[in-house]
Amino acid sequence: MWRVMETPLNCAEEQQPPPALPASWSTVTPQESPADRNDKGNAVGFVLVHAGAGYHSESKAKEYKHVCKRACQRAVDRLKAGALAVDAVTAALVELEDSPFTNAGMGSNLNLSGEIECDASIMDGKSLRYGAVGAVSGINNPVLVANRLLSEAQKGKLSAGRIPPCFLVGRGAHDWAVNHGIPPCPSEKMATKFSLSAYKRNKHKMELAEKVDTGFNHHSKKRRQASETENGSGLLDTVGAIVVDREGNVAAAVSSGGLAMKHPGRVGQAAHHGCGCWAENTSTLNPYSTAVSTSGCGEHLIRTMLARECSSAMQCEDAHQALLEAMQNKFISSPFLASEDCVLGGVIVLRCCRCSDAQPSPDIQAILVEFLWSHTTESMCVGYMSAQDGKAKVTGANLPVSKYSYSSQLL
Amino acid sequence: MWRVMETPLNCAEEQQPPPALPASWSTVTPQESPADRNDKGNAVGFVLVHAGAGYHSESKAKEYKHVCKRACQRAVDRLKAGALAVDAVTAALVELEDSPFTNAGMGSNLNLSGEIECDASIMDGKSLRYGAVGAVSGINNPVLVANRLLSEAQKGKLSAGRIPPCFLVGRGAHDWAVNHGIPPCPSEKMATKFSLSAYKRNKHKMELAEKVDTGFNHHSKKRRQASETENGSGLLDTVGAIVVDREGNVAAAVSSGGLAMKHPGRVGQAAHHGCGCWAENTSTLNPYSTAVSTSGCGEHLIRTMLARECSSAMQCEDAHQALLEAMQNKFISSPFLASEDCVLGGVIVLRCCRCSDAQPSPDIQAILVEFLWSHTTESMCVGYMSAQDGKAKVTGANLPVSKYSYSSQLL
Repeated sequence: MWRVMETPLNCAEEQQPPPALPASWSTVTPQESPADRNDKGNAVGFVLVHAGAGYHSESKAKEYKHVCKRACQRAVDRLKAGALAVDAVTAALVELEDSPFTNAGMGSNLNLSGEIECDASIMDGKSLRYGAVGAVSGINNPVLVANRLLSEAQKGKLSAGRIPPCFLVGRGAHDWAVNHGIPPCPSEKMATKFSLSAYKRNKHKMELAEKVDTGFNHHSKKRRQASETENGSGLLDTVGAIVVDREGNVAAAVSSGGLAMKHPGRVGQAAHHGCGCWAENTSTLNPYSTAVSTSGCGEHLIRTMLARECSSAMQCEDAHQALLEAMQNKFISSPFLASEDCVLGGVIVLRCCRCSDAQPSPDIQAILVEFLWSHTTESMCVGYMSAQDGKAKVTGANLPVSKYSYSSQLL
Repeated sequence: MWRVMETPLNCAEEQQPPPALPASWSTVTPQESPADRNDKGNAVGFVLVHAGAGYHSESKAKEYKHVCKRACQRAVDRLKAGALAVDAVTAALVELEDSPFTNAGMGSNLNLSGEIECDASIMDGKSLRYGAVGAVSGINNPVLVANRLLSEAQKGKLSAGRIPPCFLVGRGAHDWAVNHGIPPCPSEKMATKFSLSAYKRNKHKMELAEKVDTGFNHHSKKRRQASETENGSGLLDTVGAIVVDREGNVAAAVSSGGLAMKHPGRVGQAAHHGCGCWAENTSTLNPYSTAVSTSGCGEHLIRTMLARECSSAMQCEDAHQALLEAMQNKFISSPFLASEDCVLGGVIVLRCCRCSDAQPSPDIQAILVEFLWSHTTESMCVGYMSAQDGKAKVTGANLPVSKYSYSSQLL
């Protein structure tokens, strides 16, 4: 049995990084009250989703809120039906990928050649296994391939003692998926009016920028940073979700179409172990189960291994303080990004533990859940829902105070 | 100025893991003496290479020793010519890839479709940047692509503010390489008589194993683990190198054709950040510069992020003890590999620091270098050479006592 108990944030303004930092973040206290939640004894589990960290227009923010709500609902439906965390997190991701507005699955960014190539990964906190696909075309739900890689690997070795793969890319990933019953989708059906027109605008911007370089600047090798593409440092709307199930297992997943106008074959953090997502059940070494999903510039998130760093940080007693410090020390002022002028990313984080001093009955063990998020970008759309809730809550897209850390607890 | 000073190992037998462990390792004290080294004042730098952890025949071991020697010499030649660590480590890798006997570049394992797809990555301890290619065909020296990705990213953003990639896979990686002046090589020229005959034998073994499954065991889904492919848990001869240059910068690289009969598109640890190689110069947080390169079963090395784990461990005072513990706790008995019956891998490790109490002159700062290796496989071929040495030393392939940790120091 779980019961929601929200707590206000400790430490707000004093944790802001020095103003000299190019990217920073602050905290706000959530406004909602737990009054609208029902205590449904046998509905257990919790999901937190994101539709990307970036800069979003008002119209897109509305769509993002809708899809985040639907994704939460999908995960909670699965949890209520008895599914474990890995299945529930996959269900949330499928909903996020199916939205033509997110940069994942349907409606993904087009690459330099006008094609869609997706990355996705999933991690199971119980088995600590991971499955991932990179630069895969013609698959509408890359997360299903990642999930299937994970579950196939759990069955043990292949014929003649071969070790099953955990990470497949490109054409090979596509063919493996189709051979394992995942339906292909013609690439042209995955592009939307929005993604095609963004591609045309980006291509025009690139041509202009390159004309400036060659026309007026023949002998200069310095690259122009003006006239940025819509995804160069703008819309980084990778999607992700983290879940805890009735048994206290955690799982995390992430899916992305990658940066707009990326080079064909480029793989971002969404397919990279430790960078896109992380999930680790409690163990003798770790008092908490933790799950993390990231969003932002893939190259920054790969070099800092942000998902794993945030997961490790969550083993400290004060989750909020630990996330503040992890974002500051392991990302914003990370030595791995010392040469970057703008560090772009966001994370959603969840941690939980068995709660010995708040057992609802001798038969049922309570699980304490805390969830937080943080981002260096202007906005990040986040939704969350417990299996006891009637509907999901969403926040974060294009709000006046646009950088958040949020903490709540579930018993 | 550097001077070689070898020290005997501390702790030998007592560090062995409990005998119940499926894979274990022990230590031996190196037999060679420093007498054959010349003190050449202005030749500075050090290289350590490996030609893979696995089980090697006597004839192959001989070839491995030769190629390790040549790879060391290539790196030292570059160091003597004033090159920095990244260039020297690349030169060593090119030599290792060019050998038809190693499972990297020319002569790589063939995948399930009879094609060669290679992984490679490189990390620069100075900039902390990383470049990688995965599942790339038709490129004889994948490490050159990884190196070029690293150096291109250092130039800053691309036109229209696009972020340069650090990781490319498949066809996109191939095209990017060719567009950046790296010569393509027809895939059929990369296969050797040895790799083609191994493919045929493996294919036959697979067919036999699958016939047994379907013929006698129609209703059983249990996979057969007998009749292993030659690379299922056998020859895991990924190659790698680590280097420290005259300025004390470290670099690491790794290259692999991957497991024999792997699924097309499978990417192993050699392309995975933190798993195949790691290099990190000293900083305010880290007293030592460290470099690591791994070999073994890619899936095991990805899930444990062994390169980065060993690098972190090297910040402890006792390098030898730290590596023993890292191999035991982060690999052999890692919770990430709890379900595996056989954990296969090896690492070469180097760490160095400025040595304030042993300065040869007021103008020259001494650098203390320690290097070690360790593996859970039956053998691992390792070569090493300082820029002061006349020739490289090699050891480790198919020797009676086949599991090593070795430590030496350079001043």
